Amino acid sequence: MIDVAFLGTTVRPAGTAVVIDVLRATSTITLALASGYERVLVAGSIDEAKALRAPDRVLAGEVDCAPAPGFDLGNSPEETLQPRGTELVLATTNGAPAIIAAAQSADEVIVASLLNMGAVLEQLAGLEDVLLVCAGTDGRVSIEDVYLAGRLSAQLEGERSDAARIAESVAAFYPTAVDALQDSAGAVGLHREGLEGDIAFCAQESIVDSVGRLSEMSEGAALLTAAPAVTASAPTPELRT
Amino acid sequence: MIDVAFLGTTVRPAGTAVVIDVLRATSTITLALASGYERVLVAGSIDEAKALRAPDRVLAGEVDCAPAPGFDLGNSPEETLQPRGTELVLATTNGAPAIIAAAQSADEVIVASLLNMGAVLEQLAGLEDVLLVCAGTDGRVSIEDVYLAGRLSAQLEGERSDAARIAESVAAFYPTAVDALQDSAGAVGLHREGLEGDIAFCAQESIVDSVGRLSEMSEGAALLTAAPAVTASAPTPELRT
Repeated sequence: MIDVAFLGTTVRPAGTAVVIDVLRATSTITLALASGYERVLVAGSIDEAKALRAPDRVLAGEVDCAPAPGFDLGNSPEETLQPRGTELVLATTNGAPAIIAAAQSADEVIVASLLNMGAVLEQLAGLEDVLLVCAGTDGRVSIEDVYLAGRLSAQLEGERSDAARIAESVAAFYPTAVDALQDSAGAVGLHREGLEGDIAFCAQESIVDSVGRLSEMSEGAALLTAAPAVTASAPTPELRT
Repeated sequence: MIDVAFLGTTVRPAGTAVVIDVLRATSTITLALASGYERVLVAGSIDEAKALRAPDRVLAGEVDCAPAPGFDLGNSPEETLQPRGTELVLATTNGAPAIIAAAQSADEVIVASLLNMGAVLEQLAGLEDVLLVCAGTDGRVSIEDVYLAGRLSAQLEGERSDAARIAESVAAFYPTAVDALQDSAGAVGLHREGLEGDIAFCAQESIVDSVGRLSEMSEGAALLTAAPAVTASAPTPELRT
């Protein structure tokens, strides 16, 4: 079954959970791993992230879209393009609880964004028990997360739940990804903070190949590393040379 | 704010909650009140409904779409067209918990179906704090409930939440109501029980004017009566004669 949870709080058991927080946690995680951070530690709050500070760790986080005081970075994906250490510690209010809830009820957890949509689809190819988990914002469903869930669901094989069909309806409704993101309540806060560039950035599709996968819970945070790339069919040696 | 709760378990405080269980609880409640039942008692289970049996009460309910053993009626709306008493006791597994949850967090609770969509919109005209509550099915989101939420939301004035925009996307996706109902997981069980006629029946739009409104919790059940009709503007006496 291809299914969708509209909120991180309504997760059910599944083989593979795909956590989605387009604006901006899973976009930032994805780009950080693609940019060269070896690990991303996702903390559930600013205070938890602070407690994880250590040499070679870079702290990123936001308070109502603005960078958290004393942190190295905000939560704009582009800030991770030039790694300043080997580990990124990311404080998120919506993404972290969704990842942790998914970890408790799914065999495997990966994180998805529009930035790595194609690579996520490769990871999911052939799987029959997939739960697309929309993180939402402070307990409210977010359009942009449901939009990506619908984009992914529409490309997967297998039976769909009503929730998956609903997400696919949302994906079909918006002509482009940026239309969906601009229509969301999350866009309002980003405009307010002068971060509207993040909306256009996070709306880019399949610009990187990295897919963050949950390795373990570590020091109360979710430790994500890049999943091994999927090779759909092994090329013959002749073609490689 | 016009908002939507995709499940009866994710209800938040609101001025007016509109509970939706298109297949079939709120369609049956609506038609029962329109047909002449003075009151509908919505019970949370078959056993609770049985405990409410009394003279002049008619018991209606289903177990996995089939009529409950020993009950007077199943849960097909059409079975209420000829009242057999003054009170209908309806056992539902999804509608009742949604109504009870809504009662605990909203000032007023009404129930909506496609059958009385126009009358529901009249009740909601001018209200600014409306939560459309999709009952869902056994903890899973149902297309047909979200479809009606979107149809209602699209006709209401005021700011919309992301959830309301998602529901409106679903309403826009399906050319007709019956298309949405046929695409739902709920339709599968009705086909299995030979009750596919209920799908076409429940897809009819605005065929009655009654709107069930929660009066009180009574004997553990939700007691619904018909809300007074809304007259948008008082006609002049001359026009009435």
